[in-house]
Amino acid sequence: MRRSIATVCVSGTLDDKLTAAAAAGFDGIELFENDLVVSPWSPAEIRDRCADLGLSIDLYQPFRDFEAVPREALELNLRRAARKFDVMAALGVNTMLVCSSVSPDARDDDALAAEQLALLSAQAAERGIRIAYEALAWGRHVSTWDHAWRIVRAADHPALGLCLDSFHILSREVSPDGIAGITPGKIFFVQLADAPHLRMDVLQWSRHHRLFPGQGAFDLPGLIRTIKASGYDGPLSLEVFNDVFRQSDPARTAVDAMRSLIALEDRAGLRPLPLAPALRGHAFTEFAVDGGTGPQLREALRGLGFAHTGQHRTKPVELWEQSACRVVLNSAVTRPGVAISAIAVSTDDPAAALHRAAALRAPAHVSAHGPREISLASVTAPDGTDVFLTGPAPDWRADFLPTGENAGTGLLDTDHVGLTQPFDHFDEAGLFYHSVLGLDRLATAEFAAPFGLMRSRALVTAGRQVRLALTVALLRRGEWAPGVPEPQHVAFSTSDILAVAARVPRRLAIPDNYYSDLAARFALADEAVEPLRRHGILYDRDAHGGELLHFYTPVHGGRVFFEIVERRGGYDGCGEANAPVRMAAHRHLRLSGR
Amino acid sequence: MRRSIATVCVSGTLDDKLTAAAAAGFDGIELFENDLVVSPWSPAEIRDRCADLGLSIDLYQPFRDFEAVPREALELNLRRAARKFDVMAALGVNTMLVCSSVSPDARDDDALAAEQLALLSAQAAERGIRIAYEALAWGRHVSTWDHAWRIVRAADHPALGLCLDSFHILSREVSPDGIAGITPGKIFFVQLADAPHLRMDVLQWSRHHRLFPGQGAFDLPGLIRTIKASGYDGPLSLEVFNDVFRQSDPARTAVDAMRSLIALEDRAGLRPLPLAPALRGHAFTEFAVDGGTGPQLREALRGLGFAHTGQHRTKPVELWEQSACRVVLNSAVTRPGVAISAIAVSTDDPAAALHRAAALRAPAHVSAHGPREISLASVTAPDGTDVFLTGPAPDWRADFLPTGENAGTGLLDTDHVGLTQPFDHFDEAGLFYHSVLGLDRLATAEFAAPFGLMRSRALVTAGRQVRLALTVALLRRGEWAPGVPEPQHVAFSTSDILAVAARVPRRLAIPDNYYSDLAARFALADEAVEPLRRHGILYDRDAHGGELLHFYTPVHGGRVFFEIVERRGGYDGCGEANAPVRMAAHRHLRLSGR
Repeated sequence: MRRSIATVCVSGTLDDKLTAAAAAGFDGIELFENDLVVSPWSPAEIRDRCADLGLSIDLYQPFRDFEAVPREALELNLRRAARKFDVMAALGVNTMLVCSSVSPDARDDDALAAEQLALLSAQAAERGIRIAYEALAWGRHVSTWDHAWRIVRAADHPALGLCLDSFHILSREVSPDGIAGITPGKIFFVQLADAPHLRMDVLQWSRHHRLFPGQGAFDLPGLIRTIKASGYDGPLSLEVFNDVFRQSDPARTAVDAMRSLIALEDRAGLRPLPLAPALRGHAFTEFAVDGGTGPQLREALRGLGFAHTGQHRTKPVELWEQSACRVVLNSAVTRPGVAISAIAVSTDDPAAALHRAAALRAPAHVSAHGPREISLASVTAPDGTDVFLTGPAPDWRADFLPTGENAGTGLLDTDHVGLTQPFDHFDEAGLFYHSVLGLDRLATAEFAAPFGLMRSRALVTAGRQVRLALTVALLRRGEWAPGVPEPQHVAFSTSDILAVAARVPRRLAIPDNYYSDLAARFALADEAVEPLRRHGILYDRDAHGGELLHFYTPVHGGRVFFEIVERRGGYDGCGEANAPVRMAAHRHLRLSGR
Repeated sequence: MRRSIATVCVSGTLDDKLTAAAAAGFDGIELFENDLVVSPWSPAEIRDRCADLGLSIDLYQPFRDFEAVPREALELNLRRAARKFDVMAALGVNTMLVCSSVSPDARDDDALAAEQLALLSAQAAERGIRIAYEALAWGRHVSTWDHAWRIVRAADHPALGLCLDSFHILSREVSPDGIAGITPGKIFFVQLADAPHLRMDVLQWSRHHRLFPGQGAFDLPGLIRTIKASGYDGPLSLEVFNDVFRQSDPARTAVDAMRSLIALEDRAGLRPLPLAPALRGHAFTEFAVDGGTGPQLREALRGLGFAHTGQHRTKPVELWEQSACRVVLNSAVTRPGVAISAIAVSTDDPAAALHRAAALRAPAHVSAHGPREISLASVTAPDGTDVFLTGPAPDWRADFLPTGENAGTGLLDTDHVGLTQPFDHFDEAGLFYHSVLGLDRLATAEFAAPFGLMRSRALVTAGRQVRLALTVALLRRGEWAPGVPEPQHVAFSTSDILAVAARVPRRLAIPDNYYSDLAARFALADEAVEPLRRHGILYDRDAHGGELLHFYTPVHGGRVFFEIVERRGGYDGCGEANAPVRMAAHRHLRLSGR
């Protein structure tokens, strides 16, 4: 099935949009009328440009408020359609989307709607054009796919069929199962959008909050299978109205869109992807450091009991270890400051993982930094972090000559990596880690931080060997609210946080008020709270009695910090409830100049 | 009545919030628990800090999920409350907000709720504390003010009363009229928030979309009068959860908040403000220009038929005129580029207008630029534009020596000034122009521009002598979407746009596609469309048959453009429907380097 994308999905001028769609590998587009109207190119020039880019124009849309109107309005509407047929002829597009009417003039009269749609289709047919009729979820009289189908059946014209839009179908309560029984050939077009479940006006939900498939809560694989069962083999076309995508880089959004469609085809059984190999754990986390931040990171790691255990044979790259916790400090990178430049996860079959990534438009590359005498390939995540996939052999650690230094004890493994995301790419990142690495997504959480709302989402392996915690500001930060770049962090696990905290010299100070509140919230005895307070350890408890104890370091080099976590009784989160305390404490530390 | 503000209304650390509230002139605060929890100050230090700032702490909030629970949960809840009473004692605050329970454990049992609240109140009373019980609009069993009042009456404890929150009241269908009959003294606290009418989950509506009074759609003056009728004379306290305010400069947000409260007190008849004098029209619009942009603006004005009619006696300030259209070019300003630095509106009584502005925390100042040998005072709008108020005499034009140049004809007057707003200050700007200048607000419109959604709102005098069109991006623009700073413009009126267009050499080119669509949309004959197409004139028609014909110039100096409008048949908008075409055309022009 061909892959299409509506021009409304991405930002920019029509030229920006077409270029992005072609570069991302789409076969065709839906031309959203407003993109044509504001373009300086004539329809013929647009047709030629699309042809040059290898894009077909699969749909002209939308044509609104046509059917079930009084006679004099019908005349006007037919004349209006005739003008659009002229444009479509010049564009070389042969299918027009007609949305169910929202006009107060429309009558609740299926027979009239069918009669008028048949008339429109007859006139369209004379021009070689087909009419794809779609039930808007907020249509005045026609708002469900099955109602639209009854009208199309009644109209019984070969140039009239259905346009099915997953949002309009799945946002309503009418089951999509009957779609499989639609007469073969009568589905003319299929538009796909995902969305989160939101309890709000359906039009606002549709216009602002659609997402690409796999980024929301709809069962799109199930819908695709149902549609496929009807015999449909036309384009699968993305039509996503999303406030963020409307203003983000169209080249990137189009790749995100293509990835979503490829992943959907896999889940729907249309085009299987290579399986995502099981991930065994975090192999290492790489920090790019410079002359100023390197010493700060080394001091922080020593404070946590890490040792500089290995030195790269040829590069200014250091391996720091404690038990299975591994950090690489890379001074070969030229960017200033400090940042988490790469994460590495281990898998039994890196080659298969990279094969899948490439199929999902995340091509592997051997980048210009990182420990790589042993060839390690990486893919680049939406936030710019390189993701290395390491295998059982040859071990990348062979690149490092042992220094003989011995690490302390107490920390066991990397628990999670916390990556703050660029505003435009949070949903893209979730889909990337889910589809490329096969991580499961836990529920999205929102919390009020001192400088604005934040959203967070954890991505994990089923056995929790790998955990990533992604966060993003709910609104792009401006002049006042600090935090660009927002800090990143790595959390290490322990089974005895009190002992570790007692040994770590630089812990983030947590306000006494937090502990008073903690005692009240969880009905904790003073004896239970006191050691937490003494060490600056934060606490959370889930609905099943699972507990998290965790503490933080200050922010190092203005950008990164470490966290130590002890999980008890199956606690599965990342302590999001305590994030505002941590953020305020980091802020106070910064203001006090330490 | 005292003026309070909840710390949750503004961004930052507790110190940021308290400083902002005090600077804006508030008498007290509601301390939102999370602001305390994340603060490094002890409760006693917070008490002292508030005292130093002249702020009382009027409410501690929120205490959640207390009432109508099984016995063992009650014990825990009372212990939890006792911990909070300790904190409150140290803070020196004597009223605690208890929200109606949202817990699945809460029972639908008013008698039990009353009994348990009475018990809590008895324990509170021993500590000199009062309990203010509030119905959350999404409370599990108690979600309306009258239900909460029945429970408080049944509990019948002197330390138990109501907290009334305008959002929770006005977002529900229960009439607030009965509030006037509440037993005197039993309303312990009043929280105020406005909101737009939104069809969405009430919790999400409340947590993200509250506004300061006068910025939304609620009848707050009516509610205040009803509450006042009950004998309430405690604080009026703002409690506004708003995604934008949570991350904007707290000092500015607090002033916006105070302005909203002062304006509300006026509308509710509590403390009258000086009347807003009638505005007679736009006196002039001032552009700050530099050596590069000045010549561009002069050429553009000449092209529109303006003449340089006056030269300031002492300053590098030029007056350009045509009929009643007046533009001042000010080269005395040191900022680079070009911007609309001031708008001037005429009124019969500038002194009264300035008096009102000062009362609304917009103090008048004689700024360092502008034509002001004749002393002209201005107030500064939220977007930084100075607003001059000019009177009938002495005429500010006496500062300008006539040059003897004669202007062309065709343009009549300033129709409107279009000011793009900084993202954080759109609602603040609407309230500013409404309350300070007495302008009416027309409905907010949203439109899809090529680089993201935009929101626009017109503010007008009743007779449309003054029109301001404010626009803002729905999401703060990022790396991709261009437009910071967004362009500003001045629109001039004409009664013969075809004649004017024929004379103006540099008009913005509008795509042919626009005219094909126009003909279809409005069923216009080719003869009607052709002259529009020839001159690049845009067209809109309202539901009453009113018509707007308008054209634009290119953007000058990278920032400003002009518009010529002809209104027919009472058209009252600013052609927002055509804004995307204009924005795309400006973008294409920029890309083509002209």
